[in-house]
Amino acid sequence: MGKLLIVGTVAFDAIETPFGKTEKILGGAATYIGLSASYFNLDAALISVVGGDFPDEYIRMLKEKGIDVSGIEIKKEGKTFFWSGRYDYNLNTRDTLVTDLNVLADFDPVVPENFADCDFLMLGNLHPSVQMSVINQIPIRPKLVVLDTMNFWMNNTMDELIEVIRKVDVITINDEEARQLSGEYSLVRAAEKIHKMGPQYVVIKKGENGALLFSNGDVFFAPALPLEEIFDPTGAGDTFAGGFIGYLASTHDISFENMKRAVIYGSNFASFCVEKFGTERMVDLSQKEIQTRLKQFKLLTQFEIELKH
Amino acid sequence: MGKLLIVGTVAFDAIETPFGKTEKILGGAATYIGLSASYFNLDAALISVVGGDFPDEYIRMLKEKGIDVSGIEIKKEGKTFFWSGRYDYNLNTRDTLVTDLNVLADFDPVVPENFADCDFLMLGNLHPSVQMSVINQIPIRPKLVVLDTMNFWMNNTMDELIEVIRKVDVITINDEEARQLSGEYSLVRAAEKIHKMGPQYVVIKKGENGALLFSNGDVFFAPALPLEEIFDPTGAGDTFAGGFIGYLASTHDISFENMKRAVIYGSNFASFCVEKFGTERMVDLSQKEIQTRLKQFKLLTQFEIELKH
Repeated sequence: MGKLLIVGTVAFDAIETPFGKTEKILGGAATYIGLSASYFNLDAALISVVGGDFPDEYIRMLKEKGIDVSGIEIKKEGKTFFWSGRYDYNLNTRDTLVTDLNVLADFDPVVPENFADCDFLMLGNLHPSVQMSVINQIPIRPKLVVLDTMNFWMNNTMDELIEVIRKVDVITINDEEARQLSGEYSLVRAAEKIHKMGPQYVVIKKGENGALLFSNGDVFFAPALPLEEIFDPTGAGDTFAGGFIGYLASTHDISFENMKRAVIYGSNFASFCVEKFGTERMVDLSQKEIQTRLKQFKLLTQFEIELKH
Repeated sequence: MGKLLIVGTVAFDAIETPFGKTEKILGGAATYIGLSASYFNLDAALISVVGGDFPDEYIRMLKEKGIDVSGIEIKKEGKTFFWSGRYDYNLNTRDTLVTDLNVLADFDPVVPENFADCDFLMLGNLHPSVQMSVINQIPIRPKLVVLDTMNFWMNNTMDELIEVIRKVDVITINDEEARQLSGEYSLVRAAEKIHKMGPQYVVIKKGENGALLFSNGDVFFAPALPLEEIFDPTGAGDTFAGGFIGYLASTHDISFENMKRAVIYGSNFASFCVEKFGTERMVDLSQKEIQTRLKQFKLLTQFEIELKH
C-alpha cells in the first residue's frame, strides 16, 4: 500500500461567488488534497498547523476518512489561518479580501516518524522554505515528489522556490504561472524550460479549461468535465492534485501511461469539488459517483479515427 | 462526392499580434473555411463579394485548391471588405482597429445554379439576413446546415439571428457568445437552451482551450493542440468550421460518432492556421502533415482506464 505524505494548509475560508456566500468554513490546500486522495487505497498523513479555534469535528472528519492527522499541530493559543475571497462572474478571477496567516506565520513542519519512509510526497502550496524543510526531513528520497505552488512565491521568494523546484519530480501550476516561471508564452516551450529547472513532469492547470501533462516531449490533456452546476472553484486545483497523487500512490506506478490516468482522476475529483461550496461535495463521494464520471470522461474524449500512413 | 456550399466574407486583413504585423493580406471567413475544406474529397463553392482591388492571384489560388469561385461576385467599381485588428499579449482578446465594409455593405448573395442542390451548407459569419437569403435560395433542404455567427449580431440584429438559428442543424459560437445567447453561465445549460432554439448540434469554440460539441445530452471535447509557435489566431475559428463541415461533407455521415471526428479535424486544421500570419499556413498543407497531427491528437487525448461496474 502506498504511503502518501501531504504538507499544506488547513484553514478557514470565507467565500463569495456569483451564486452565494459562506461564513468561515473548512478550507486549506492540505484539506482538499487529503480528502481527494482519501478515496484511494493508501496510507495518507497530513502535516499542517491550526489554532485553538479549529473545531474538533473537522479533525474527526479527516480521521474518519482514514487520514493520519498526527502531523496536524494544534497551537491552542493561536488562531487558524484564514482566507477570504470573492470570485467574479466568470469564476476565472478572484480577489483576495483577507489573508490572516495567524499560526501559519511560523509554521515549522515536523514529519511524523511513521511517515519518514513515505514513498509519495505532496508539497501543497506554501512558503518554499517550509516545503524544503519537509524534503530535508525525509532520509530516503520518495519515489515521487509533487510540488504545488503559485505566483505569490514567484513574486516574493523566487530564489527559494527555484531551490525546491530543483528537488521535485512533478510541478503543478496554472498557465499564467507557467508563463511567468519560464518567460515563454507557448505552454509547450514553457514546459520545456521548466523541465530544465528540475521536474521531469510539468502539470499545467487551466481551471475550467482542463489540465496538460508534459514529460520531455510527451503531452497529454485532460479536459474539465462540462457541468450543469459550477458553484465554487475554491480548492479545485488542490483536489486535482490530491486525485493525481492519490491515484499514483495507490497504483505505485509512475509511468507516463499511468500519469495520464492520474490526471483524469484529478480532473474527475475536481469536477465534484466545484459543484458545492468548499469541501462540501468532497466529504462523502460514493465509488459509484466516481466511476460514473470516469465513464463520462471517456465519452467526452475518446474517438476513433482512421490514420493514413 | 459531397457538395458543399460556403457563404461568407472574402476580405483584406491587416493584423497586429505580439509577434509581428502585416499589411493588407488575404482574409475573410469564407476564405479560411474554403481553404480548410479544400483538403477533403468534395465539391466546394464559395459565395462572396469582392471589389475591383482584389488581386486575381487570390482568386486563382482558390481555384487551384479546387474551389468553385463562380459565386464570388467582383464589383469592379467597389473596394474589398477590409478589417484590421490588434491582439493583446495573451492572444485571447483583440481590438478591432478598422472595419471598412465597402462592397460587403450591400452584399446580395446569389447561389450558383450548379450548387442549388448542395447537400452541405456553411453559413459563415455575416449579417443574418444575408445568411437567410442563401437558405431561401436553396429549394431542397441540404442534409446539414452549419451556422457561424458572433456577438455583434446578437447585440444588433438578434431577431433576425434567432430566425436563422431556427433553420440550422449546427451552430458554432464561442463560449461567451453561448452564454450571451442563452443567458446561462454553465455551457451544458447554455447548449440545452440553444438546442431548444433550433440547432440539434451546438459547437462551442474556446480558442486555445479547444471546442465542445453538444447534441441533446451527448457531449464531446476536442482540445487545441499545444503548439511551440502560436503566431496569429485570425481565422482559426473559420478554419475549424471548414475542417468540421469539410470532413462531414466528404464522408456524408452526420452521426454523432462522425461529428466527433469532424471536430478533431476542425481542431487539427486550426492548429496549422495559427502558426503563421493569415492564410499563409493553410495554402499548402501536405496530407502527411495533416496525418501526423491527427496522430498527435490521439496521443494527446486517448487513455485506457479500468472502469469498475
